[in-house]
Amino acid sequence: MDRENHANNGEDERDVENEGLLDGKEIERNWSGVSEKNMTFREPLLVKRVNTTSQIAIVGSNVCPIESLDYEIAENELFKQDWRSRKKIQIFQYILLKWAFALIIGLGTGLVGFFNNIAVENIAGYKLLLTTDLVSKKRYFAAFAAYAGCNVALAIAAGALCAFIAPAAAGSGIPEVKAYLNGIDAYSILAPSTLFVKIFGSILGVSAGFVVGKEGPMVHTGACIASLLGQGGSRRYHLTWKWLRYFKNDRDRRDLITCGAAAGVAAAFRAPVGGVLFALEEAASWWRSALLWRTFFTTAVVAIVLRAFIEYCSTGKCGLFGQGGLIMYDVSSAQATYSGADIIAVILLGIIGGLLGSLYNFLIDKVLRIYSIINERGASFKILLVITIALLTSCCSFGLPWIAQCKACPTDASVSCPTVGESGNYESFQCSSGYYNDLASLFLNTNDDAIRNLFSTSTTKEFDISSLFIFFGAVYFLGIITYGIAIPSGLFIPVILAGACYGRLVGRLFESVSQLDTGLYALLGAASFLGGTMRMTVSLCVILLELTNDLLLLPLVMLVLLVSKSVADCFNKGVYDQIVKLKGLPYMEAHAEPYMRQLVARDVVTGPLIMFSGIEMVGTILHALRTTGHNGFPVIDEPPFSESGELCGVVLRSHLLVLLKAKNFSRERVLSGEEILQKYAAFDFAKPGSGKGIKLEDLDIDDEEMEMYIDLHPITNASPYTVVETMSLAKAAILFRQLGLRHMCVVPKSQGRPPIVGILTRHDFMPEHVLGLYPHIKPHKRI
Amino acid sequence: MDRENHANNGEDERDVENEGLLDGKEIERNWSGVSEKNMTFREPLLVKRVNTTSQIAIVGSNVCPIESLDYEIAENELFKQDWRSRKKIQIFQYILLKWAFALIIGLGTGLVGFFNNIAVENIAGYKLLLTTDLVSKKRYFAAFAAYAGCNVALAIAAGALCAFIAPAAAGSGIPEVKAYLNGIDAYSILAPSTLFVKIFGSILGVSAGFVVGKEGPMVHTGACIASLLGQGGSRRYHLTWKWLRYFKNDRDRRDLITCGAAAGVAAAFRAPVGGVLFALEEAASWWRSALLWRTFFTTAVVAIVLRAFIEYCSTGKCGLFGQGGLIMYDVSSAQATYSGADIIAVILLGIIGGLLGSLYNFLIDKVLRIYSIINERGASFKILLVITIALLTSCCSFGLPWIAQCKACPTDASVSCPTVGESGNYESFQCSSGYYNDLASLFLNTNDDAIRNLFSTSTTKEFDISSLFIFFGAVYFLGIITYGIAIPSGLFIPVILAGACYGRLVGRLFESVSQLDTGLYALLGAASFLGGTMRMTVSLCVILLELTNDLLLLPLVMLVLLVSKSVADCFNKGVYDQIVKLKGLPYMEAHAEPYMRQLVARDVVTGPLIMFSGIEMVGTILHALRTTGHNGFPVIDEPPFSESGELCGVVLRSHLLVLLKAKNFSRERVLSGEEILQKYAAFDFAKPGSGKGIKLEDLDIDDEEMEMYIDLHPITNASPYTVVETMSLAKAAILFRQLGLRHMCVVPKSQGRPPIVGILTRHDFMPEHVLGLYPHIKPHKRI
Repeated sequence: MDRENHANNGEDERDVENEGLLDGKEIERNWSGVSEKNMTFREPLLVKRVNTTSQIAIVGSNVCPIESLDYEIAENELFKQDWRSRKKIQIFQYILLKWAFALIIGLGTGLVGFFNNIAVENIAGYKLLLTTDLVSKKRYFAAFAAYAGCNVALAIAAGALCAFIAPAAAGSGIPEVKAYLNGIDAYSILAPSTLFVKIFGSILGVSAGFVVGKEGPMVHTGACIASLLGQGGSRRYHLTWKWLRYFKNDRDRRDLITCGAAAGVAAAFRAPVGGVLFALEEAASWWRSALLWRTFFTTAVVAIVLRAFIEYCSTGKCGLFGQGGLIMYDVSSAQATYSGADIIAVILLGIIGGLLGSLYNFLIDKVLRIYSIINERGASFKILLVITIALLTSCCSFGLPWIAQCKACPTDASVSCPTVGESGNYESFQCSSGYYNDLASLFLNTNDDAIRNLFSTSTTKEFDISSLFIFFGAVYFLGIITYGIAIPSGLFIPVILAGACYGRLVGRLFESVSQLDTGLYALLGAASFLGGTMRMTVSLCVILLELTNDLLLLPLVMLVLLVSKSVADCFNKGVYDQIVKLKGLPYMEAHAEPYMRQLVARDVVTGPLIMFSGIEMVGTILHALRTTGHNGFPVIDEPPFSESGELCGVVLRSHLLVLLKAKNFSRERVLSGEEILQKYAAFDFAKPGSGKGIKLEDLDIDDEEMEMYIDLHPITNASPYTVVETMSLAKAAILFRQLGLRHMCVVPKSQGRPPIVGILTRHDFMPEHVLGLYPHIKPHKRI
Repeated sequence: MDRENHANNGEDERDVENEGLLDGKEIERNWSGVSEKNMTFREPLLVKRVNTTSQIAIVGSNVCPIESLDYEIAENELFKQDWRSRKKIQIFQYILLKWAFALIIGLGTGLVGFFNNIAVENIAGYKLLLTTDLVSKKRYFAAFAAYAGCNVALAIAAGALCAFIAPAAAGSGIPEVKAYLNGIDAYSILAPSTLFVKIFGSILGVSAGFVVGKEGPMVHTGACIASLLGQGGSRRYHLTWKWLRYFKNDRDRRDLITCGAAAGVAAAFRAPVGGVLFALEEAASWWRSALLWRTFFTTAVVAIVLRAFIEYCSTGKCGLFGQGGLIMYDVSSAQATYSGADIIAVILLGIIGGLLGSLYNFLIDKVLRIYSIINERGASFKILLVITIALLTSCCSFGLPWIAQCKACPTDASVSCPTVGESGNYESFQCSSGYYNDLASLFLNTNDDAIRNLFSTSTTKEFDISSLFIFFGAVYFLGIITYGIAIPSGLFIPVILAGACYGRLVGRLFESVSQLDTGLYALLGAASFLGGTMRMTVSLCVILLELTNDLLLLPLVMLVLLVSKSVADCFNKGVYDQIVKLKGLPYMEAHAEPYMRQLVARDVVTGPLIMFSGIEMVGTILHALRTTGHNGFPVIDEPPFSESGELCGVVLRSHLLVLLKAKNFSRERVLSGEEILQKYAAFDFAKPGSGKGIKLEDLDIDDEEMEMYIDLHPITNASPYTVVETMSLAKAAILFRQLGLRHMCVVPKSQGRPPIVGILTRHDFMPEHVLGLYPHIKPHKRI
């Protein structure tokens, strides 16, 4: 383990959240047993580099310091005073603002979603038109040069944005949003620069012909917009507003970002109900009924915005953006009656889909580990990787269609064959008039159009089995190797694309026994892949139904999702959970691990603990702030201020900094809380946006002041949640998780000892930490 | 206040859950300030009768003792031992059983749902055929006699079932299921007799022509089936099974019942996704992702069962059960494009719908209070009330159509006019051939068919405005006065019926400005009423979409629901919340009330507290069990077994009874835990079904044994959740609610005092209790 390494050069790495530091010897003793075990290919990427409790994690393709969020309501004097004095008008403002924000998030996300679609359709559309035009003139090399050139140029632009401006914008974004909603704040996950790169990087990346989607980035975009609102705008870009101070706490921000994530899905899939369910099932860690209601409002706004824009564009004012811009597949002509043989075929499809889905997750994990080595070397390597994949994708897209044979156009086709214009089922490519190349109509199209082609009904023979097979193989592996490069890249579309192709392939193979339409098979194949990788159920089901607009398919889609998820769950976790773990984000599961039952809270407390008195010397506080990275300190009342040592509460680093900054010190050790209460309002201690608070370096305290005292009572959270040291660790973990705590005090069981044993944070519950301390405990499978 | 009365005749009323009894004087002092205020027409029905913390509540139309459920995992020695020894095969059995149960619940509920539909369609169908046959022969009095006679006979049967066998089966059942899932176990809510009466009472009640639905009862039925499984079958009816012991705890039962509730909605509306969302949004108080997944499986099974049966019946093997049996409205021919004027009309519709919906709730509340006085007088009065309402309903249904004028049949009608057979839009009633009575086609039909008629599209002029107005008035008020009589009566159908009629009326009135189809208006009207009464959003939206099978209506339905819920929320709470409160069920809200911030945990603790030593004398335990109704007792370790007095944990009454029953006593005060651990397994202490555990009277302990000692350590929950006495009550309430506790220990802040201050239960957090103790605190509106 490089743990000692870390101790040596710990100066330059912010040790943000580890409340109880182990001393060197103990570490060695504790870790000697596991050092070898932990060197395997399975643990989070960052364990080796920093420490087990991951105060630093990979976000996007960058290493980034992280901090816990605090969803607890602090009950200190200041807050109580503020609450008592809060006027009705303020409460009304607050409620109004909540709904106004939901509206703005909805409008913003809807707008961005639509803008994204228009831009992609136009950029990719012109690129494809140029290519097919050159091909039809038999200028094949020029066509390839134009196609690959466009792709690489767009890819470089996207990669450069990501590599230089906001590395956190790389990847899907859903794992990061999920982690944020679980209480993990990685600096820059939701920063304005990330938002900017996410929007434009996603447009460029999708236009560049990568096998990536815009759905994950859309969710991240929605969350970023919500965060920007909740953080009180961006001070850097001079976008702030006074009312926004109401939202300067983690709980309200969490609610906003939940709405944002839902809005993202709603905008990406035009699925408002699916968006709400996605936020509920996959993204959010906490949920309440009032939030359901607000989220629903947000997605309704998104739906209305999209509808209005589509209406506007239907008159042809949006360039190449036609009806096909927003994905929406119509399989309503597919029959919804099915026999026993169909059911068996569908179950088989679900099983294989589940297997392929879990394989997808497995491979993505491995690829990400390899890419992380490359990405780590710097921006130029990141861009080089992007270019490599872009070239590979271009070669596949342009090269593979040559394998396919030209097929004669069907005589009864309702659309023109070969296709004229940018999207359609019958791409002529190199074929002569009256013929079409089925592989080209899949490869030389936007991903959305390719999916629409695969979902198309009543066109059983349109694609050859061999063509489907080639396309499936190409898309499956391109999807895997594309995720992890430094561009915003969603996972939904690659999975749906591969799944739809797989489904259509199965449909063709089962033609003789099953009467279901091949378009319907494609839908079910997509469902099986989604179930196998993402492991959602209800939300995927609703999203697919909203996409296809046919509720009669419900039983079949449900069946496939259930089967594929069950099968895939035997092998590994869902892709987002896997990425969260891989990135080293300390995600708290909703349930406690079984081995935690064998331990008590005291067992994972690591010392020494730093405490303050209720009235503490300024120098002591400053020293503690300087020498540790702790974010919370217990405050103890000692005689003469109480009968014996009593736990007064917990004080936060950020609040201490605000208090020290104002220099309300007194020369004597006396209660001066009243004075402080008069000088401050609760808003002065409200949480600033990430990275915006007062820094330790901002303080300027002279030697005389160091000897003075300050009363910590007004800013001490006097009602911290506590557990007795003999509390089962499993139950302590559940308490910690359910209430969304940042610090939990462990108090002694017997009397006559100091009133606090230690403080537990999120990191103390992480399996790596607990199993590191107790290597003899075998993690059981959960019941 | 009758509190003193209660103290006098408290013998015959089981004081189940009040852990700290107030002594008489304190009560008088505390209550003198509020006695008058609390006599208003607003508090729960039972406050006056029992005490503020309602250990007894009205369930159905009966007064019933209630108990809290405990969702905490008890970490005692026995449990730990059991967990360590649990074999892999048992874990596998447990998982298998969970899914098997989900399957059985799905199958059972689907079956019952279908049976219910067939029975209602056949009984009501023959009744209506008989009536219309007599009318067509101009034998009007005979027709009325037959109609009213059938109705009254069916009503008496339903009322008698409810009054004599299972009073808890009266009403919707959703409030009771909601309360159960919140942790309130009213004896007999989910008993097998309730299940029986709910199924048959519902069939009889709906067939009797009451304006009631079968949807609420269906939810209750699903929950009952789940409970029957979870309770390990019914010992009384010799239906038990050994494996079921795995589910002998409240948490697993809660999960099952959540599945059951979802299955009920899925069966009632044929809406599997809607069922899941209903369980999530309205029914459940706790939720986790794994449960979503299992619930989804259950509702998928229901959907498949229903589909199979409908396929079977489509060949005409089910009597009068045609396609119309399960509600499913097809409005797909309605256009989904709309203009600005339409939107304004729809918003107006939503506003008025919200107003009418909240008025509905208000009136139901008043009617229930009046009915409770009648129902209380005994079974015969209950039945008399049922007969009165049945006669009134019959008179309305048969009498009001005479007001309507005969209308000429439309020439372009796609169905036969006048209607032949049992259901259709064009009931001829007293009209001559070629004419139909539009009011009769609404009144003399099952509720499902009436709704279908109202939802029918492309038939703008079919119903006169005056007819719609009369029907709306009749149904609105019949719906209100019918709920609360002693029959199983759902609220969904009355609300949808009144709402659909209202919507169609609005559609007719707006004909000149709005181009939307009147059938679509009817749907939106139903949505506005549902939003106004039930206050659900996402689940109602999805249920309506699944009913109508048209996703393009989504934006309009969402808009109406949002508007009507917002409007109605200004006036009162949702109808189910209101009924829960009215019945005196101690429902824990997810959030803390603002006034709780002004109090600390110590403030609501009421003494004297009864404690046990770790090794306690049998006589002391027995005395405590006899003289109090407490269900949990703190256990204290004293020297020589610990250094000073230490809180060892909490022991449950039911566990004490099991331990005492086996008489493992020792003569000396020694630790005999090991011995006890060898003699028992954790299953011996597993929770029995409600009302089935060992009673105090079952114990037979002689005087000598009274002097002996027993070691309580093995059965003591050694990791109880604790709060410090100075913890804000608001935060304590959130801890209690989020973790689903039954007992919460309040520990002292300063040292040198007894290690426990008191125990808080659900009742100590009830507004009535807290505001009773502190009448000067004004409950603020929540921010």
